[in-house]
Amino acid sequence: MIPGPVRVPQRVLRAMSKPMISHRSSDFEKIYEECRSRLRELFETENEAVILSGSGTAGMEAAVGGIIGKDDKIITVTNGKFGERFTELGNRYGTAVLLEFPWGTPYDLERIEAALEEGAKAISIVHNETSVGIVNPAKEVGELARRHDAIFIVDGISSVGGNEFLTDEWGIDIAITGSQKCLALPPGLAMVTVSKRAAEMLEDGKGGYYTDLKAHLDKAKKNQTPYTPAVSLFFALQEALIMAEEEGLAERRARMARLAKGVREAASALDIDLFPQVNEHSAYSNTVTAMKTPEGITDGQLRGGMRERGVVVSGGQSALKGKIFRIGTMGACTEADVLRTIQTLELVLLKEGLISSLGAGVEAASRAMER
Amino acid sequence: MIPGPVRVPQRVLRAMSKPMISHRSSDFEKIYEECRSRLRELFETENEAVILSGSGTAGMEAAVGGIIGKDDKIITVTNGKFGERFTELGNRYGTAVLLEFPWGTPYDLERIEAALEEGAKAISIVHNETSVGIVNPAKEVGELARRHDAIFIVDGISSVGGNEFLTDEWGIDIAITGSQKCLALPPGLAMVTVSKRAAEMLEDGKGGYYTDLKAHLDKAKKNQTPYTPAVSLFFALQEALIMAEEEGLAERRARMARLAKGVREAASALDIDLFPQVNEHSAYSNTVTAMKTPEGITDGQLRGGMRERGVVVSGGQSALKGKIFRIGTMGACTEADVLRTIQTLELVLLKEGLISSLGAGVEAASRAMER
Repeated sequence: MIPGPVRVPQRVLRAMSKPMISHRSSDFEKIYEECRSRLRELFETENEAVILSGSGTAGMEAAVGGIIGKDDKIITVTNGKFGERFTELGNRYGTAVLLEFPWGTPYDLERIEAALEEGAKAISIVHNETSVGIVNPAKEVGELARRHDAIFIVDGISSVGGNEFLTDEWGIDIAITGSQKCLALPPGLAMVTVSKRAAEMLEDGKGGYYTDLKAHLDKAKKNQTPYTPAVSLFFALQEALIMAEEEGLAERRARMARLAKGVREAASALDIDLFPQVNEHSAYSNTVTAMKTPEGITDGQLRGGMRERGVVVSGGQSALKGKIFRIGTMGACTEADVLRTIQTLELVLLKEGLISSLGAGVEAASRAMER
Repeated sequence: MIPGPVRVPQRVLRAMSKPMISHRSSDFEKIYEECRSRLRELFETENEAVILSGSGTAGMEAAVGGIIGKDDKIITVTNGKFGERFTELGNRYGTAVLLEFPWGTPYDLERIEAALEEGAKAISIVHNETSVGIVNPAKEVGELARRHDAIFIVDGISSVGGNEFLTDEWGIDIAITGSQKCLALPPGLAMVTVSKRAAEMLEDGKGGYYTDLKAHLDKAKKNQTPYTPAVSLFFALQEALIMAEEEGLAERRARMARLAKGVREAASALDIDLFPQVNEHSAYSNTVTAMKTPEGITDGQLRGGMRERGVVVSGGQSALKGKIFRIGTMGACTEADVLRTIQTLELVLLKEGLISSLGAGVEAASRAMER
């Protein structure tokens, strides 16, 4: 029940085990073409889609390395762990102007607008901050970016396919997701969509070599890859995208929303505080719920106790280590998974004396998840 | 029968399909530790080994981007297609001094020494040039590199585990291999070994971000990765390395040597010329055999005819397109695979009127492959 890598469905595992094919064959080109087309539906975009054989970070480097040169500025907005990566990338290829908000608190849109007024070639946000369980205002930042003519880069790694994610409507020039999150694949692929105006800014020989966005885009137009792709993971992606279509993209997001609501209502019933603060421009994530570790129990007792009982949940990262715990509800996660997780949490809380009877959390989750 | 991606054994496919685990778990750390240890045996080295989730090119970028800065020179020696990639990488991060020999001809060691005398921070070679089927003199270039105090980088992508590859004895500072070649895994992992003197040259914030060798090395010491690894491929790598040990690393190389000899003897019996020219410092590859397309038959007829009969072999790349064909004998390839391939080749040659009876190639291969 961690927020990725998530459990991989049997169908996807079977697809991944298909006999190897040459990555220079027309068979591979057909798979890539189908995946690119299905990804455009998933990202709700008409933009080009490319797939890199690497983690989400490879996709983030493709975006920043492709757009930002040594004389360029990128505003990197952050309210959690993953925003930091954009800042490192920005400083590797140009200059990052870090706009930092306390972890788990909403963006201040006025400060973002003020930063854009200073001038920047691009602005990056993390849509779903996995480290704190908050969904950031992509639509609003997209409007500001467009008004100030900045390329808008969005890390949608733990968001696309789980939360609502409207690439074109929100004006996202480069959107990135990873395979091991809402798509429920093993890790190892990064999916990136690129707007026409972003594509026009790409130049030969810029940015990283392996993650060279122009090289990937140029080849993708022929449904090929510049370097040997992780073919097995492409088999798996094709199957996962078919499964997503079978469930229905909207139904799939609605399922994850129900599950996350179940977790939040269970937390409330068990007197556990949610970690992020949300306002009218931000929201609790439907793919990961971050909760404060209750007083009277340590992180080791809580997560260790759950792990002993067979359920693995995540802890906090960096400064939040020991202070929060996180439950993922992305990918192939089901109502039963959430009920078992909450039940296990209750057993641990009971053992440590934080609650005196079982059932309140499970009941709240059960009610909240009802269709 | 192409020189990678190769057929993946069932045992490896099954291992790849194991249930997902967190990449931040001690279970993953144990797998990474075991793989690193087994890789050191495979590379015959005491150097550190790291694994990148990406193609061999990611490993090449890790090497060049880690060592070469904008004021540095790297000599890139090439006699085939894959040498070009080092030149592009060298020019991305610093300056590449290209030392080019006609494709498929041996290196001229005197010219290499002369280039080193001009001064360079590093020199790169491709040990097994997959595009032309030649094995280049790593030992001899390694001696020259050491004498001129240059970091020695070797692309061993289609070589390690197939041809003899003595990282420490040959003084290789950074050696690279890929998963989809001699190890018979799906593509998607790059394995890199790094000497102490190369590691000491690495600096924070240099080279590519996703392929940052220092970041990977620092994390590898704790058996962790800087970014989310392709966990399923690590499962597969662990199993493939166990299988290689079961067969015996030397026995495995001897098998590939026998198979390649079978292909070469069959070619000779069928009056087909081998493409590469070898001398005392170079050799025919044991992992891929490149042959000239015989007069009187087109590439389309030859490879198309074989494909129709169920056997896929590779053609020439770039200027060699239509002029050569290549048969891979790496990974899990067996005597039966070679015999079937030669038989299929004979059927096509017979149909096109280049030979008048069947059997000479198969017999020659059969004799040559006898243990």
